[in-house]
Amino acid sequence: MEHDQRFGTQRSVTLPGPLALDGGQILTPVTIGYETYGTLNGDASNAILICHALTGDQHVASLHPVTGKPGWWTRMVGEGKPIDPARHFIVCANVLGSCMGSSGPATAAADGQPYAMRFPVITIRDMVRAQAMLLDHLGVRVLTTVGGSMGGMQVLEWAATYPERVRSAVIVASAARHSAQNIAFHEVGRQAIMADPKWRGGDYYASNDPPADGLAVARMAAHITYLSEDGLTEKFGRKLQARESKGFGFDADFQVESYLRHQGLSFVDRFDANSYLYITRAMDYFDLAEEHGGLLANAFRGTKTRFCLVSFDTDWLYPTRESRSIVQALNAAGAAASFVELSSPFGHDAFLLDVPELFRVVDGFLKAGGL
Amino acid sequence: MEHDQRFGTQRSVTLPGPLALDGGQILTPVTIGYETYGTLNGDASNAILICHALTGDQHVASLHPVTGKPGWWTRMVGEGKPIDPARHFIVCANVLGSCMGSSGPATAAADGQPYAMRFPVITIRDMVRAQAMLLDHLGVRVLTTVGGSMGGMQVLEWAATYPERVRSAVIVASAARHSAQNIAFHEVGRQAIMADPKWRGGDYYASNDPPADGLAVARMAAHITYLSEDGLTEKFGRKLQARESKGFGFDADFQVESYLRHQGLSFVDRFDANSYLYITRAMDYFDLAEEHGGLLANAFRGTKTRFCLVSFDTDWLYPTRESRSIVQALNAAGAAASFVELSSPFGHDAFLLDVPELFRVVDGFLKAGGL
Repeated sequence: MEHDQRFGTQRSVTLPGPLALDGGQILTPVTIGYETYGTLNGDASNAILICHALTGDQHVASLHPVTGKPGWWTRMVGEGKPIDPARHFIVCANVLGSCMGSSGPATAAADGQPYAMRFPVITIRDMVRAQAMLLDHLGVRVLTTVGGSMGGMQVLEWAATYPERVRSAVIVASAARHSAQNIAFHEVGRQAIMADPKWRGGDYYASNDPPADGLAVARMAAHITYLSEDGLTEKFGRKLQARESKGFGFDADFQVESYLRHQGLSFVDRFDANSYLYITRAMDYFDLAEEHGGLLANAFRGTKTRFCLVSFDTDWLYPTRESRSIVQALNAAGAAASFVELSSPFGHDAFLLDVPELFRVVDGFLKAGGL
Repeated sequence: MEHDQRFGTQRSVTLPGPLALDGGQILTPVTIGYETYGTLNGDASNAILICHALTGDQHVASLHPVTGKPGWWTRMVGEGKPIDPARHFIVCANVLGSCMGSSGPATAAADGQPYAMRFPVITIRDMVRAQAMLLDHLGVRVLTTVGGSMGGMQVLEWAATYPERVRSAVIVASAARHSAQNIAFHEVGRQAIMADPKWRGGDYYASNDPPADGLAVARMAAHITYLSEDGLTEKFGRKLQARESKGFGFDADFQVESYLRHQGLSFVDRFDANSYLYITRAMDYFDLAEEHGGLLANAFRGTKTRFCLVSFDTDWLYPTRESRSIVQALNAAGAAASFVELSSPFGHDAFLLDVPELFRVVDGFLKAGGL
């Protein structure tokens, strides 16, 4: 039994599964919110799956139904762009555990009540398994996977879990495992959410009064890690916000303060706090080497997938050395891998911003692969 | 009218002031909690003022009255150490705005109620002015000033505000201004505190139920910035906490998570949330160049003070380039300045830890200055 639905501009499919999760639980049914652009060609060889980051969604190149803003990667996906609906069948699915139409803590469990914290803890591999179910449903067997940040982790997991299905893989500003510092920042965010009395152990959906303050603080802390120190200095420095001199109070005196506050406040309008807990947990659990006997190269033995990795020199969240260690593992496994570190002042956020070299690299890599 | 008091092991003095603050307000009286070690010699030439960091206090080399732990800098201060009570008259004062005996938001205003957020917003220079009042009270005119992190900011401010009083100045792991990223991290901490409903606009003293959750989150976020990425990886990596495998829940699975939680929880027992707001604000306001026409060298023109600066190669909170820019300004001002970058895996925290080179450098610098 399966059926398609549309909620507003949101398309989703509910599949029976069952989806066996790394945590040992079984998820059934599995609902997946997704968007597609372009059409699948005759031999189903032009499919590209785009994997989104922690707070991203399936609206990679179409208006966000909540914010009304353009898609989050319109520089990469669109007419005349490296990933082009005129040539490619583009799929982007909301990750398992998120809040834009896919099964997650906000969706109803068998008893009709939201799962909340009853939702099983998931992994990046579980997200990928759910995506594979969607692609089966869409008649896509072989594909190219592209993603940045957590999206890159999914791309790596795709290549390791379904090597025969992945022709080419593009991993941007990502890592094969979460470092202690990565985990530490996520833990601060989770503690900020769970310390908010409105979190109520996760059971806040009926209240219509979610833990917005805690989620905003979590977003603020995370947002600092997305920007480079130089970028912050260049953009804000110590410039004051709409005032001539210091206010000697606790309002946002500095532009960087009001910018961060805005980042926190605007985020809570579009994201679910419990989903933030579950997805950050999945990222912290991610360690592709650990899943393969402790040796990252084992994840790629005998693979025929072509790999393209891109890092940014000012990214201190997933620094270049993380990409380099992936490339070394791919080389050790005899995989075809290309790697470039691009220069950008934007830190980790660069993968979402206007870095022309990034689009040239991806365009060239896809075309060289016959896409 | 002045008098000395002892609260338990806490010594403090209440001076009439008045203390004219950078924010335009007048503080009177001014209470200063402090500790001294050793004795002032006949010509009052052996005084060393130690300036503490954001969450430090006057108990530099004596038991903390709340935690019962040893002083925070016993590696630097003590018998046979670079700063030695047998040779030096050592003074360490709780900074204005803090919560260990000096005037701050928790102390009583004229109406007998705690100032709370009625306490005036202060600056690093205000802290230094209060320290100067204490030293006058103690009969100390000329001194050597030593401090790390925010303590180093006070040392710089001492040299700029009272050049004729400062013989030698030791600035460790510090900066002459707070960067946009420094401000951003502090703003996250302040928002975490003010988002805690128990903060109650700062009026929580009577409740005996302070905003501990918000303060703990603030401390967790700040603590990450005190450690290096490599140090975190070396110390914790992805090691699990007291378990064989992932718990697939939201308890502290990773050692780094439980370590951070412990840092947050233990901090709230010894620190006041409002003091955290005021002191972080003072640090964010600190920009010594701005106080001197935008040119840092102007802060040191004609100074006879000897300067010693130390930075640590893995400190990303106040990186080496910040110390270097101070040295360049000192050179431009014709001041006597020595500078060394030390190698340590501990990040910013190195100034508090066992880095023998640090003690050798400070010992040599003080002795060369006749101390």
